[in-house]
Amino acid sequence: MAAGKHSGLNERALIADIFAPLAANTPGALNLKDDAACLVPPAGKDLVITTDAIVAGVHFFSHDPADTVAAKALRVNLSDLAAKGAEPLGYTLCLALDEECTIEWVSEFAKGLQRDQLGYGISLYGGDTVKTPGPLSVSITAFGAVKMGAMVARKGAKSGDIIFVSGTIGDGALGLEVARGLYDGLGDEKKAFLLHRYRCPEPRCALAPALVQFASAAMDVSDGLIGDIGALCAVSGVSADIELDDIPLSPAVHSLVGGDDRLLHLAVNGGDDYEIICTVAPGDVDAFLDSAQQCGVAVSKIGVITTGTHNPRIYDNKGKQVTLLVGRYEH
Amino acid sequence: MAAGKHSGLNERALIADIFAPLAANTPGALNLKDDAACLVPPAGKDLVITTDAIVAGVHFFSHDPADTVAAKALRVNLSDLAAKGAEPLGYTLCLALDEECTIEWVSEFAKGLQRDQLGYGISLYGGDTVKTPGPLSVSITAFGAVKMGAMVARKGAKSGDIIFVSGTIGDGALGLEVARGLYDGLGDEKKAFLLHRYRCPEPRCALAPALVQFASAAMDVSDGLIGDIGALCAVSGVSADIELDDIPLSPAVHSLVGGDDRLLHLAVNGGDDYEIICTVAPGDVDAFLDSAQQCGVAVSKIGVITTGTHNPRIYDNKGKQVTLLVGRYEH
Repeated sequence: MAAGKHSGLNERALIADIFAPLAANTPGALNLKDDAACLVPPAGKDLVITTDAIVAGVHFFSHDPADTVAAKALRVNLSDLAAKGAEPLGYTLCLALDEECTIEWVSEFAKGLQRDQLGYGISLYGGDTVKTPGPLSVSITAFGAVKMGAMVARKGAKSGDIIFVSGTIGDGALGLEVARGLYDGLGDEKKAFLLHRYRCPEPRCALAPALVQFASAAMDVSDGLIGDIGALCAVSGVSADIELDDIPLSPAVHSLVGGDDRLLHLAVNGGDDYEIICTVAPGDVDAFLDSAQQCGVAVSKIGVITTGTHNPRIYDNKGKQVTLLVGRYEH
Repeated sequence: MAAGKHSGLNERALIADIFAPLAANTPGALNLKDDAACLVPPAGKDLVITTDAIVAGVHFFSHDPADTVAAKALRVNLSDLAAKGAEPLGYTLCLALDEECTIEWVSEFAKGLQRDQLGYGISLYGGDTVKTPGPLSVSITAFGAVKMGAMVARKGAKSGDIIFVSGTIGDGALGLEVARGLYDGLGDEKKAFLLHRYRCPEPRCALAPALVQFASAAMDVSDGLIGDIGALCAVSGVSADIELDDIPLSPAVHSLVGGDDRLLHLAVNGGDDYEIICTVAPGDVDAFLDSAQQCGVAVSKIGVITTGTHNPRIYDNKGKQVTLLVGRYEH
């Protein structure tokens, strides 16, 4: 682990005292005392590599608890691995610390990493800490393993394939609204649920084996369900019909949405879900559902892949086409 | 490649137009149109993984040419791989763009990456672009391959081993001073040389095979030659005697230093060298020198590993111990 330059915190001490224990079970990480780590690739496997950064004030609130910042930074990456059918192995971490950052914050941050390392069976392979005059940011590169040639791509969905999504949709987008102080009347329990879902998404690593075996295509939902289905369709050269009422919503989102179309559409397409979209050939659907159940991950059928290159179409329960009032997160 | 949130630049367009071409020769990168990349590990090899971040105003100047920012971000990582004896394969990139960043800047940045990809035979595997209200920063995770079990560690130096360093030392540290506007009288050519060495360090990837075959320990010099030798010694449980006059200096550094001890010590221990320190058993020295020559990398003998756990000792050409006026870059 390279100690970065110029921080007010003593970065060699941070590495030795706070981060090295996160690498203790990885002999190839050399206690973060070397320039680099050594990873022995699992035999017969391909490596899957992904990277995502989060920035204070952009992707999380600077007052968010440090352990949830760690969890979010790690989990958005694990979600990508899960969507590709990969079992997570480890990660590297670049931490840019702002001037106000304290040793206590970094310790709590590391506790969040440690908890998720145990939860997901992964380890830290290396990192870099630098100081920034700007906001704190966290960049993580995660790597996982998948059977040789078996990585599940976005490309591969075929007309007639059934579209599934894991978990529930909209908790993250409405959790962000709760974090902004909205929905005072919702009740503390539901607010806490949504806030937690926003801060600590649940990567569906457990679903990976079912995806490898049965999915024709998959991706994780980060920028909005419908928009992301559109992205999957675009790269596969197909389109989709989506049943609005089949999109799985949590009780908290249900209570919030009521009959408010704008809120419903925000839930459906607001992003920050980190659930998995996948497509499954009709003949594999029963086996996929069995497999997902064995994996312990709820999946819901929400539509079907169609021919064409138009944007996915969304229908209400009367068969009427719906125009979303909330677009995909655009950049 | 995940498109980040909230940038003024259109990040999907950045990825498609500017970054995807950098991944064009890597089938596993899927044109950066997927959540993750697939890396087929080379047979019989271990992977070596390292990560380093650089921040505008901290590690480089915000007015530095964009292509040199790219080169520096990439090369500080390649230098770590080289020191471990690894052949570089590829990298992932997290780019946090500040509010003033333009499409022209990003294009020039990508040109710098492209040039080095060709130069070092590597490719982009994935990345993330996010916007930051703070300074622009670049985090890179690089991975390379080394014969199974053959990664060269910092740990392994033994008493009696000869200490070598590649290239010349001090160009980066004094190049930083040039970048700050010092040394007006030095002459344009030498100033340009030092500035270039500061902005575009030269990772000694070519030396990797010689290190794998002959080095008992190695690391790259980033925080100061003497301090970094101390770090290598500490993890190896040894110490070192260094001959000050044997430390290789470029003509530009020679002219600057003259008889100025402070400047000499700044050159010797100022950091930003990205050269390689290695230790070689006495019986392997001739073969190592032959091998380094075949690799086309100049190496200089600068000292010897000794017993003890004290800091490395530095001697002048009269055998008198020297106390450095410039410490290791401390954090």
